[in-house]
Amino acid sequence: MVYFKDIQLARDRIKKYIYETPLDHSMYLSNGETDVFLKLECQQRLKGFKIRGALSKLASLTDDEKSKGVMAVSSGNHGAGVSYSAKLLGGIKAKIFVPETIPGSKLEKIKYYGTEVVTVGRNYDEAHAAAQEALDKEKRIFIDPCSDIEVIAGQGSIAMEILEANPDIDAILAPIGGGGLITGVSVAAKHLKPSIKIIGVQTEACPAMAKAMKDRIFYSDFPSEPSICDALIGGVGEIPYNMSRQCIDDIVLVEEESIKEAVLFLMDKEKVIAEPAGAVGVAAVMAEPELFKNKNIAIIISGGNLDFSLIKAIQR
Amino acid sequence: MVYFKDIQLARDRIKKYIYETPLDHSMYLSNGETDVFLKLECQQRLKGFKIRGALSKLASLTDDEKSKGVMAVSSGNHGAGVSYSAKLLGGIKAKIFVPETIPGSKLEKIKYYGTEVVTVGRNYDEAHAAAQEALDKEKRIFIDPCSDIEVIAGQGSIAMEILEANPDIDAILAPIGGGGLITGVSVAAKHLKPSIKIIGVQTEACPAMAKAMKDRIFYSDFPSEPSICDALIGGVGEIPYNMSRQCIDDIVLVEEESIKEAVLFLMDKEKVIAEPAGAVGVAAVMAEPELFKNKNIAIIISGGNLDFSLIKAIQR
Repeated sequence: MVYFKDIQLARDRIKKYIYETPLDHSMYLSNGETDVFLKLECQQRLKGFKIRGALSKLASLTDDEKSKGVMAVSSGNHGAGVSYSAKLLGGIKAKIFVPETIPGSKLEKIKYYGTEVVTVGRNYDEAHAAAQEALDKEKRIFIDPCSDIEVIAGQGSIAMEILEANPDIDAILAPIGGGGLITGVSVAAKHLKPSIKIIGVQTEACPAMAKAMKDRIFYSDFPSEPSICDALIGGVGEIPYNMSRQCIDDIVLVEEESIKEAVLFLMDKEKVIAEPAGAVGVAAVMAEPELFKNKNIAIIISGGNLDFSLIKAIQR
Repeated sequence: MVYFKDIQLARDRIKKYIYETPLDHSMYLSNGETDVFLKLECQQRLKGFKIRGALSKLASLTDDEKSKGVMAVSSGNHGAGVSYSAKLLGGIKAKIFVPETIPGSKLEKIKYYGTEVVTVGRNYDEAHAAAQEALDKEKRIFIDPCSDIEVIAGQGSIAMEILEANPDIDAILAPIGGGGLITGVSVAAKHLKPSIKIIGVQTEACPAMAKAMKDRIFYSDFPSEPSICDALIGGVGEIPYNMSRQCIDDIVLVEEESIKEAVLFLMDKEKVIAEPAGAVGVAAVMAEPELFKNKNIAIIISGGNLDFSLIKAIQR
């Protein structure tokens, strides 16, 4: 279980290292009935929210744990966050497992901070299996991207910033991959404002959390249709699953086609580069505006590491 | 003349309304010899630095002046800044003259905040002439985009943020249009760190300030070759010209082709949307890296209102 106190402590640990990203009013998504704000975590250091959780976790380690080194599996942003944090906090030894499908721009960032990278497996779940095997031999600290109290607490700091910037927010939309982001955000937001609604968004290609909540089954792996949302593919985290009924008020599934539209809309109108996984909240609001009528909503644009080849591919 | 004290006061007036934008380390432009940081004013509210000057000026008006209403000429970002500020500060009546060449995204922002817009003239200088004529009849307060102490002081707040974020910066690169940005930045930066170098950047298509400093002539109008840098076209401001010898250590001229490269580089590698005028500093560093050897440099990315049609046009 993650509590608000964990999030307060995490925020204190990471505050001086991260950006307090803008909560920008969107003149294009707002209308007379709905006011839409974009929490631009795509402009966070390293262009994604994952650095919050990674820094929170690494900064919470004891000296003894730090000396053992850390290990992580990542489709990109979590790996970059761990790699950056390991260097920032005095050169903790880090090893990151990444799937072969990792976008080039994300791989460059992981490597830049001097981390050892192991490229293995056709997807996140396969890279994860390889890392687990290695972990049995090397006694490193494993940095789970979503099922870890300190990681989730780091992500939760986003909700504190949102409600400080605008206490009138009625609902927060957050992408769900493993579920770390929405869990942290929900714990903080519901503590600060019990009436707030927390809406998750997933691609139809991989509705792992939606299915898990419906079936009441913890899906640590989950199959996926082809998707441009590399960061949202795979199963859910155990803590996020166990907390999902108290944290997640609703989940909206969006089509891959709407996600492309949302990426282009953000670039064209808002002048914001979001990766597909970061744009799913906008896709949800564009596809189902009536869900958010008469509300002030904050959409978390969770990451900005959009591959340029993808920009070209999705332009008509 | 603009003094550091003006900039301190301006910063106090505008601080709660603006974002303190990131000073992001660029892993792609840095190398063993040069460390490059990007001051992302393209992520400022309304996606440009001009709101700093506009807010500084409008917040400095007396109630009597506010009641007369304001007027401005703009190729885009200044107009949006005045329009937004006029609404924010309690509904000051604003009228903005824009040239017919104004990019669509910039025009939308000016209109959004309820300002009266007059579209006139083929370029900035022609719109400016029309505004001057109207000003003789209507007794509004004219908000000069660059030759105004309070406007320049507002822009200067950028340099305070840069040197607070990284006191080791040796040189700041700033685009020059009318010269308001570089003048404010220079006054603040040289007060805080007398050894710092302030380098202006202009497009070869319209080297107004470079020519003015060389010829020792105040060019209030200046002819331009075709350019994608709508925000950098036209003559220089009188105060910036008069202060140029003490404020500007050097000016680098960049080719239109390099500016396109810089816009694409920022989008592809840095995941940052910059308008062409905002990207000239990056073009300068890419074209003449040896100028910045063994230095820590901060490049001001001054605006992000890039028209989508332009993105498509400059992609190969």
